[in-house]
Amino acid sequence: MKLFRTLISVDEALRTVLAYAKRTGQEELGFDDALNRVLAEDVHSPVDSPPFDRAAMDGYAIRGEDSFGASPTKAVRLRIRNKRVEIGAGEGFPIQTGMPIPKGSNAVVMLEYTKERGSDLELFRPVTPGKNVSFIGEDVKKGDVVLKEGRVLRAHDLGMLASIFKSTVRVYKRAKLGIISTGDELLDPSVAGGSGIADVNSYVLTALTKKIADPRRIGIVSDDYESIKTAISAGLDDCDGLLTTGGSSVGKRDFLADAVSDLGVIKFHGVAIRPGEPTGFGIIKDKPVFVLPGYPVAAISAFEMLV
Amino acid sequence: MKLFRTLISVDEALRTVLAYAKRTGQEELGFDDALNRVLAEDVHSPVDSPPFDRAAMDGYAIRGEDSFGASPTKAVRLRIRNKRVEIGAGEGFPIQTGMPIPKGSNAVVMLEYTKERGSDLELFRPVTPGKNVSFIGEDVKKGDVVLKEGRVLRAHDLGMLASIFKSTVRVYKRAKLGIISTGDELLDPSVAGGSGIADVNSYVLTALTKKIADPRRIGIVSDDYESIKTAISAGLDDCDGLLTTGGSSVGKRDFLADAVSDLGVIKFHGVAIRPGEPTGFGIIKDKPVFVLPGYPVAAISAFEMLV
Repeated sequence: MKLFRTLISVDEALRTVLAYAKRTGQEELGFDDALNRVLAEDVHSPVDSPPFDRAAMDGYAIRGEDSFGASPTKAVRLRIRNKRVEIGAGEGFPIQTGMPIPKGSNAVVMLEYTKERGSDLELFRPVTPGKNVSFIGEDVKKGDVVLKEGRVLRAHDLGMLASIFKSTVRVYKRAKLGIISTGDELLDPSVAGGSGIADVNSYVLTALTKKIADPRRIGIVSDDYESIKTAISAGLDDCDGLLTTGGSSVGKRDFLADAVSDLGVIKFHGVAIRPGEPTGFGIIKDKPVFVLPGYPVAAISAFEMLV
Repeated sequence: MKLFRTLISVDEALRTVLAYAKRTGQEELGFDDALNRVLAEDVHSPVDSPPFDRAAMDGYAIRGEDSFGASPTKAVRLRIRNKRVEIGAGEGFPIQTGMPIPKGSNAVVMLEYTKERGSDLELFRPVTPGKNVSFIGEDVKKGDVVLKEGRVLRAHDLGMLASIFKSTVRVYKRAKLGIISTGDELLDPSVAGGSGIADVNSYVLTALTKKIADPRRIGIVSDDYESIKTAISAGLDDCDGLLTTGGSSVGKRDFLADAVSDLGVIKFHGVAIRPGEPTGFGIIKDKPVFVLPGYPVAAISAFEMLV
């Protein structure tokens, strides 16, 4: 009988797989459609953020210098301006968090430390210039790289794209991964009322693949060499790569590694994972083919480690 | 000015929200469409798994008793049966992992410990009865509850459903969550070339919501009491709940909590999270309304804690 002569380590297997990892094509998407996609560009901010000097608190925009000397027992009195115009010495402008502070002002005194007296304003605390203000470009400067090529876009990254008005982004296309189960004994569990051995792997791998690529369930192929070769060739015509399960070991009906060798090159076969030892990886027509074990737990563990 | 008189703890806020959590309606889905959905039924297995006594290794099915005394230096010799019939004393049947063992056999001796000699078989190790066999119903017995109501279905759960030929499952419908941003200053970042203050929250919350519900971006509503009330009412006609951001604090233009009180009941307002303090929660027409802060990091932290 055949046995695995050498098992390679998981690290080595992973290095081999990554060495053959290829980027798929690119596409331009609305930023809000790009959740969980991989960026294909460095994103430079087209704007400053904040776009202007803005209040970081509710209160009054003033010239910080005017508040010096204010204390709970000795208020400083300013005039309230209700129009957004340039303010001068001894003036204050009522302001909400996030609003631009008016020209001439350089600080915000919090509402809690003020009291309105008719058209005047009393301050009970001093603020230094710059206090409670976010200055233009403080978070992001125009031209800064805010997200790098290769990043998987999460919800807060979409928020970053929104905040800089980056309405579309270039991302890599999702790879189409064909999924083949092999085994004469397998039955499709989506057909109600079945009993016997269900093709579990096609469905678990489809669900796992959804996170990273576009799964195409090819279905069940019987345990003979020609059927398997035909299914692999046809699958690769339509997909960017394949996951096969079953027939991956070295028994009499374990044709997968031989079929991959025959159609292309097998890069490794036999990995030091348990369960998942009979795992292989090959390249056919420049596309990756993962040869995973048939036993579902083994197939899942091999998938999680390598794909 | 208004201030939060009391901040409730995150625990208390969460308990309040959960007390009003309601199950949405149910629907029947193909098991392979149910990824990340919440089960609305206890799933009882309609079958035994394995469905028969099956080989757990490649090798030969035998009567374990026949192998007693075998050793590397003293082989036991059996006759090979090549037809799947009931085997008797002194007989072995070649078998692959996962195949049913023939009647009369009760153990599998691994291929590694055997040698074929014409129509005979030599064994070099003894196996006890039951060795390398998975017995019928060993994993799951017919009628067993394999997945409970309320479970979020992951990839391996779909594998479980596949393995027992449970082709459809009853799940809860995804709740429709309407998302409203308030603020006169906000601009829609999906419109290219914008500058100013982008409505970040609508997009981040939409992306975050996708994991747990069906988000409906309602858009930007201006900072006035009537517009906000109208938007909340209209949003609840169409959705099972709402997330609002902005205007959640106690400043002059913070109308959200008042609007919710006016239309229904505010259950809390002010939570001891930083950032995220000005967070509220109310019930209008039996539907939940989350009043989240406008500052994006605060809105995200409040969402992650409570929604």
